[in-house]
Amino acid sequence: METGKSSRRKQCILNAVIAALEESDYSSLTVEDIAARAGVGKSTIYRWWKHKSDLVFEAFREQTASVFDLDFNASLDYNLKQQLLKLSCALNHPVGRALLVVMAEHREAAGEFFRQYLLPRREQTRKLIQQAIGQGEIQADYPFELMLDTLYGPIHYQIIFFNRIPDESYIEALVQLVLHPARTP
Amino acid sequence: METGKSSRRKQCILNAVIAALEESDYSSLTVEDIAARAGVGKSTIYRWWKHKSDLVFEAFREQTASVFDLDFNASLDYNLKQQLLKLSCALNHPVGRALLVVMAEHREAAGEFFRQYLLPRREQTRKLIQQAIGQGEIQADYPFELMLDTLYGPIHYQIIFFNRIPDESYIEALVQLVLHPARTP
Repeated sequence: METGKSSRRKQCILNAVIAALEESDYSSLTVEDIAARAGVGKSTIYRWWKHKSDLVFEAFREQTASVFDLDFNASLDYNLKQQLLKLSCALNHPVGRALLVVMAEHREAAGEFFRQYLLPRREQTRKLIQQAIGQGEIQADYPFELMLDTLYGPIHYQIIFFNRIPDESYIEALVQLVLHPARTP
Repeated sequence: METGKSSRRKQCILNAVIAALEESDYSSLTVEDIAARAGVGKSTIYRWWKHKSDLVFEAFREQTASVFDLDFNASLDYNLKQQLLKLSCALNHPVGRALLVVMAEHREAAGEFFRQYLLPRREQTRKLIQQAIGQGEIQADYPFELMLDTLYGPIHYQIIFFNRIPDESYIEALVQLVLHPARTP
């Protein structure tokens, strides 16, 4: 079992990661610097994390712990808009930027993050869509896996390639464009 | 004017960048290593490129020089499918992966690449869609800028987050899903 002390130390280390990324980028991030900021030895960090990419994943996980939670009593539109807005915000944060770098560069780490973090969240969204299908709102045979890519994909694309943070009006228009053809006539 | 000799040297350097990225990732890429592989001094590289990110941009530009050209005599569907297939391929190449890392990490460099490389290509696609509108194929008032994001976005998203290379069947389904509601009734 994790003691209070080690949990507090972990928290200090993750705060140090966030502070370091707010000042510089992922390439310049070093375990030495994180250890110095957190007031711990390097070996303490390596006890819990193998590589600095793991620290970025955990910092992102921490920051977004319940951010992407869905509200099954609210509408599909509302949920998707809220989720995309929060995603846009999270990816634009220095920790989110670092996550994009790690995902693009370290395929193995990316696979791990995908399984542990993304898949369970995608599963929740899938349930939300199944609910909308059950309520006769969305066509039962609509290819919604692909539909989800046309919602999440543009957010990443705008941030990485256009250096633009999708705002409420972009997201509103995107959700309308993508959901419209999926609705039951 | 560029002499034949300096043009050949540039080519050697870009080949060295590609070879280095095929063996390792962007983080491990060093100007020293590129210089050694190309058989030139570091100062020769710095005469033309300020930073290793610039070398990645130029290697990507080289590799994809005419890859994304459109055929204005072919259909919109055909053009989009071909372009997305080639994009999928180019981004999955080590040079494309490195480009994604640079775009995610270096916002200034990303802005430069966006203006010089992406915007002119986007302009071509815009013309192709205008042509399809002129031919009565696509609705004139359809928000096609957003539509383009729902085509290009998922390709990047699948590669970065799912570590999957969108293949012909994925792209075929994507283009159908996105173009269908845009067509004139």
